[in-house]
Parts: sequence; C-alpha cells; structure tokens
Amino acid sequence: MNKRSVILISGGLDSAVTAFYAKQESSELYGLSFLYGQKHNREIDSAKKIGIEAKLKDHVFFTLDLNQFGGSSLLKNSKETIPNNVSVEEIGKEIPSTYVPARNTIFLSIALAYAETIDADFIFIGVTSEDYSGYPDCRPAFIDAFQNLINNATKKTILGKNIRLNTPLLKLSKDEIIKKGINLNVPFEKTWSCYQGKDKACGICDSCKLRLKGFKNAGLPDPISYITTPEWYDLS
Amino acid sequence: MNKRSVILISGGLDSAVTAFYAKQESSELYGLSFLYGQKHNREIDSAKKIGIEAKLKDHVFFTLDLNQFGGSSLLKNSKETIPNNVSVEEIGKEIPSTYVPARNTIFLSIALAYAETIDADFIFIGVTSEDYSGYPDCRPAFIDAFQNLINNATKKTILGKNIRLNTPLLKLSKDEIIKKGINLNVPFEKTWSCYQGKDKACGICDSCKLRLKGFKNAGLPDPISYITTPEWYDLS
Repeated sequence: MNKRSVILISGGLDSAVTAFYAKQESSELYGLSFLYGQKHNREIDSAKKIGIEAKLKDHVFFTLDLNQFGGSSLLKNSKETIPNNVSVEEIGKEIPSTYVPARNTIFLSIALAYAETIDADFIFIGVTSEDYSGYPDCRPAFIDAFQNLINNATKKTILGKNIRLNTPLLKLSKDEIIKKGINLNVPFEKTWSCYQGKDKACGICDSCKLRLKGFKNAGLPDPISYITTPEWYDLS
Repeated sequence: MNKRSVILISGGLDSAVTAFYAKQESSELYGLSFLYGQKHNREIDSAKKIGIEAKLKDHVFFTLDLNQFGGSSLLKNSKETIPNNVSVEEIGKEIPSTYVPARNTIFLSIALAYAETIDADFIFIGVTSEDYSGYPDCRPAFIDAFQNLINNATKKTILGKNIRLNTPLLKLSKDEIIKKGINLNVPFEKTWSCYQGKDKACGICDSCKLRLKGFKNAGLPDPISYITTPEWYDLS
C-alpha cells in the first residue's frame, strides 16, 4: 500500500471516525482543517487533538473568512441564534439556519488543491446522509457531482491519474458510525460536535441531539460532558 | 430584466470584457476578486479600476493564501521563475508552471457561496479555451462539470432555483474577445494581463504574448505600455 490521502478534519465525531478509517487505507495521511469564521474555535482544538492521535504526516489549518458573505447562524458575524428547539425526529427534514452556503464545495475545492499539490490519491470527507442535518452538500448526488468535477478540474486528473473522493460514512446511521469508531479505537472523548463553544456540550442543538441519539442507539455512553441531555437519552 | 450576477474580476482583459458583457445581462452586478498569495498585486489594482468602471453594486476582495499548499510559479512563496521563453504558437500545448492547482475550482466555489448568499441568478467568469494558457480548469468540460455541481450543491439550487454559470468568452479567440470589448467600451488601458508586477507589462510572458497576439490579429493597438514587444507585434 502506497497511498497518500488528504482528510478533512472538523473536530467532530464523523470526521474523527473517517480519519481513523483513512489511516488504515493510506500510507500517509495529510489533515486539513478550516478556520472559516465560525462563532467559536472549540472544534478546532478538537481537530488538533484528533490530528495528533491519527499521527498525520502534516496538518494544515486553512484560514478563509466566510463572514465576508454571511448567510449562516454558525458564522460569528451572524446575529441569528443557533436553533436548539428542534426535536430529534424533525432534524434534517428542512435545511436549517446552520447551513453555510457552499461550505463543503469550498472545503473540497481547497482539499483538491492540497491533494494535487502533494500528489495525493484520495480525499476523505466524513459526510453522512442518514442521520444528518439536512445540508444539501452532504448528499450522495453532491458527492457524485464533486467527483465528476475532480475528474475534469486538475492537471493530475486530466493527465489520467485519479484523485478519488472517499466518503466511508455516507450511507451509515450515526450509531453505525459510532460502532465503526469503537472498532477503530477513535478517541471520542477528544471530539467536539456541539454548535456552541462552551466548556461542556449544550446537549440541545441539532448536532448534540444527533450525536446523543447515535450513542443511545449504539447502546454506548458518550464520553464527553453535557450541560443537559434530553429525557430520551437515558442509558441506565 | 431583474437579474443579479456575481462576476469574477481578475483585473485582466478577459474578465474586464466579461464584466461589461455581464452588465448588459444583469440588473445588479456584484464583483469578486481574489488575493490568493500571488507574487504581485498589480492585477488587483486593475480589478478595482475595472470594478469602478463597471459600476458594481458591491465588490468583495476575498483573501485566502494558496501559498499554504504552493505548486505554482505564480505564487509568491515559489522560487520558480515565471516562464518567458515559450513561443506564442506553443502556448497552451502543455500545462505551464503558472497553473495554480484547482484555482478556478476554488474561485468558483467561493463565487457560489457569494451567489447563494445574495440570491444571485448568474455567475460570470471570463474563461476561454481557444487562445488560452493550457489550464485544465478553463475547458468546456470543466465548466459543464461545475454547472452540474452547482445544481447539486446549494440550498437554493436543490430547492429548484437556478444559479447559472455563464462563460461568454469560452469559445472566442483573443482577437474576437478584444473586438467584443471594443463594442462594449471596455477600458482596456485599465486592464493588466502580465504575470510580472512591474510598472510596464513585460511583453514576454505567456499572458503578454497571448494578449499582444490578440490585438495584432484584431488589427488594433494595445493601449497599455510594454517594456518590450515581440518582433511579430508590428502594427505599422
């Protein structure tokens, strides 16, 4: 095996599992994380820790400020609050205010530049279309369209070499992702999923609820601390 | 006509003609230029001037530093010199060192975020695949692949509204672009095509040669000043 991979690491649970999976598939792993003008950088601290645990060959923290356009409650210049009153069953049915316009398109484009520069074979991204937040740029149709773009976009690919976009979690539910992570020895205690940047996870934003539902369905305790947890999250 | 457009403005001749064309097709024009870690910002000064002449509604100068990856002689951290010894007939036959990995993919992704945020109908980009530099991300197959990506990437497009990628110069030769610009009253004296950042254009880099060949074939004098011009550029 002599495969070089770029892995997008947000600091969340999904990208951590993807990083540990990609490690198995690659001889060299290059991490890419983004400071894109989020309301908090709590997840970036987690991305650093995950990168160290996954023994990356290099880890680029790429800065670009999407507040220049705005359009999302996740961005720091937004006065819109992050929603916390959506029931776990309703999450993903509508595209929420936390959607950042074209975020994954931008992140994958920059990953593509990185991959071409270091002559990587794979780009890994931990998107999931099952227990997900309803974002358009996490769906299989988006991933297929981006692979088609890659095939037509770079010097490397038009000269006949592949850069393959890998999405090992795309069709998995959150509890399946967690079980996969357990098998891969992912340090879940170092991941951060909450949309808030507090000391403990809030337990009520969409991202916390999806994570807690995943651990609940997997029959496992989430190792991180929460300010509060929903009634249905009871592992006793 | 009630159409809002995003236009990518590099400061070069092609994007200036595209901006003036887009102005005719749009009720509101929003400019987007990039400080991406080029060796010089001479072209950005031109982009500002073109933006003012085109009476943009707004003009965003987006900063992201592609030197974090490198891979091109156009980037300021590169020690590679910009080539100036390619004959005008040979330009475009091979992909040159001035190719920046995935640059147009990244620029269009960010344009897409801008377009979605301001609810724009069009994105205009002045790529051309005829008298061009051989870059993979200027070809029709790349443009088609990016349009397909747009259709699958954003909240706006998956909800059924269009964001159309427009490339009015794609099939035009450089002299045809120049003639189109003359008809549109493009202030060519304010554009900058040279890869070098000197007071006058060098006249010997690929970009200068393609521009001079265009003016020569159009039978018109280029209004900007050159340090030197090729023997074949003789309008007397």
